Amino acid sequence: MPKEFTVTPWKVEGEVDYTRLIKEFGTESVDDKLLNRIKKHTGELHHMLRRKIFFSHRDLNWLLDEYEKGNKFYLYTGRGPSGNTHLGHLVPWMFTKWLQDKFGAELWFQMTDDEKFLFNDKLELEETNRLAYENALDVIALGFKKGKTKIFADTDYAKTLYRQALRVAKKLTVSTTKAVFGLSESDSVGKHFFTTVQSVPAFLPSALAGRNIPCLIPHAIDQDPHFRVTRDIVHKLGYYKPAAIHCVFLPALTGPKGKMSASIAETAVYTTDAPEVAAKKIRKYAFSGGKDTVEEHRKHGGNPDVDVSYQWLRFFEEDDKKLERIYNDYRSGKLLSGELKEILIEKLSVFLKRHQDGREKARKVLDSYIVKD
Amino acid sequence: MPKEFTVTPWKVEGEVDYTRLIKEFGTESVDDKLLNRIKKHTGELHHMLRRKIFFSHRDLNWLLDEYEKGNKFYLYTGRGPSGNTHLGHLVPWMFTKWLQDKFGAELWFQMTDDEKFLFNDKLELEETNRLAYENALDVIALGFKKGKTKIFADTDYAKTLYRQALRVAKKLTVSTTKAVFGLSESDSVGKHFFTTVQSVPAFLPSALAGRNIPCLIPHAIDQDPHFRVTRDIVHKLGYYKPAAIHCVFLPALTGPKGKMSASIAETAVYTTDAPEVAAKKIRKYAFSGGKDTVEEHRKHGGNPDVDVSYQWLRFFEEDDKKLERIYNDYRSGKLLSGELKEILIEKLSVFLKRHQDGREKARKVLDSYIVKD
Repeated sequence: MPKEFTVTPWKVEGEVDYTRLIKEFGTESVDDKLLNRIKKHTGELHHMLRRKIFFSHRDLNWLLDEYEKGNKFYLYTGRGPSGNTHLGHLVPWMFTKWLQDKFGAELWFQMTDDEKFLFNDKLELEETNRLAYENALDVIALGFKKGKTKIFADTDYAKTLYRQALRVAKKLTVSTTKAVFGLSESDSVGKHFFTTVQSVPAFLPSALAGRNIPCLIPHAIDQDPHFRVTRDIVHKLGYYKPAAIHCVFLPALTGPKGKMSASIAETAVYTTDAPEVAAKKIRKYAFSGGKDTVEEHRKHGGNPDVDVSYQWLRFFEEDDKKLERIYNDYRSGKLLSGELKEILIEKLSVFLKRHQDGREKARKVLDSYIVKD
Repeated sequence: MPKEFTVTPWKVEGEVDYTRLIKEFGTESVDDKLLNRIKKHTGELHHMLRRKIFFSHRDLNWLLDEYEKGNKFYLYTGRGPSGNTHLGHLVPWMFTKWLQDKFGAELWFQMTDDEKFLFNDKLELEETNRLAYENALDVIALGFKKGKTKIFADTDYAKTLYRQALRVAKKLTVSTTKAVFGLSESDSVGKHFFTTVQSVPAFLPSALAGRNIPCLIPHAIDQDPHFRVTRDIVHKLGYYKPAAIHCVFLPALTGPKGKMSASIAETAVYTTDAPEVAAKKIRKYAFSGGKDTVEEHRKHGGNPDVDVSYQWLRFFEEDDKKLERIYNDYRSGKLLSGELKEILIEKLSVFLKRHQDGREKARKVLDSYIVKD
């Protein structure tokens, strides 16, 4: 009997079977043939591609066909600003940054302050809007190019977005939002309407330019239901269906079930956590794949496949050889759980310090990334 | 058995029983006590009040309580720009102009270009938006005060409206839009969402000012379902429920069933019809309450209660004595149907000529009435 899990844009629960998700969502897996094709253009492969952290896609071959014909694509991704940014959020953004560099692509980055207001009873719009700009600092800190990166909060950019969302909203029925998102009649018209706004950046640059421009959306797999709707409708509006590439979730600190939650502090490391705070969280909460005693561990070895410290290193340690050594040492029992945690802590300390410096510098240039009109 | 009729924001059919509508919609009738109370402040009563063309209201006594305490109200009305303005559209606007003058009230005038796009398969947004500004000329031509009148098209004013519409959309379920508007799951999320945007001007000035300002909405009775929703939700948001005063429909030229339709040319006189064109339409199409032959008419008299020319004079001839004389002369048979039509034609020729002059002058000052940010 298959393990039970849930993956929707608003809830991820259970231990996710990503292979099954590809079948259920009807996406394609990222295979070696596709990776080789990408490598032809990028020279090297991002470690998140090498490790199949980006494991699934839609129409990436078509996108590369267009690219090879000289039809450049732009990138679109986003964030629902309901709290502080944590490391899990950074995963698709870091990869998007690499894509921007390798393909010289423009990025449209959507902050769905409207969504987080509509879907969270406790959040007011003033707060989700404030968080949008706070979270934008994390985006900018990753090094996205000024002039090639447009960040917008939905409510502030509504003059442009609303008009386009209406074109989607005219073609989307409540039957469909019920079927695709599991919404019901007791849900607000705001929830039923929202996905139309998330659709807009998938064709907005085309609408503004008056010609079709291919779009690639790197995102965590839970957002796929939105883009299934998007693809269906923007096609009817005469635009290209956006291509997408999907990543798995960074596991929660407390274990491999579900994704990190910005609202449960011990499951996540925030980008604003001081390195010492992050270190404490990892030492205290990081789920271990090690044995109960040092003797047993030395004898039988640990299990890196469930050990969260090792899993996090898959996302943050770019060096394949180093990672393989850690894997083998942990597996053999040479490396203890505590030692593995310290390797992660060291890696993240450097990362967090640099990110936090970048974040403060980003405050000064924030305005030059934001579009509002 | 009661006569069958339908009154919704998007369809008016059959011969409307306005007394029954008051019961079904749960509004109050405009009675002499209320009229006297209004007269205390206005000195005189508008002929559309004297003739109970404005026949129904919500919370008008409360509004006057507030006014008498020094708590001034603003006016809100609007237009769905799906075509040219016809004389029926002008009815609530002419009365609103009188209210603005008598109470020194600010007017917020909404052009729902979004609605007309969402509810009409054949209309594109570019067209409804263009019509919004074309129709705005008719509003301005009626003499609304510059500086006290804000006209906005929803899509252009979305930066301000969308944020507030979300607050309504969070509290409105699909069950409610189904029940109130008769929408179904096969209807678009755009249709289900739209009413939230029509709610916004009922509290926007309060939201922007940061204090509660009473609102009065003069409108044709078919829009009441929107404002039932509005009243319920804005109250939950901490604002006053808007008061409203409702008018009957100007009958279609072709007869008393239903309202004039901007899309069926022979049922309506457009504000842009040349006086000769209007005269021709009236001579050709105006439903007559007269007898079949002159002899019979002289003997038995006509029926002004169904005669459209007479009914239109109730809306456009301000002089009660003159109107009464026409009524009696028609009733007695002294006035023939053709003669009655000529009285209406003369009245409307003067009106149209002045309105069309005003409309052209309005082009030059349009910008000073429009708000977009």
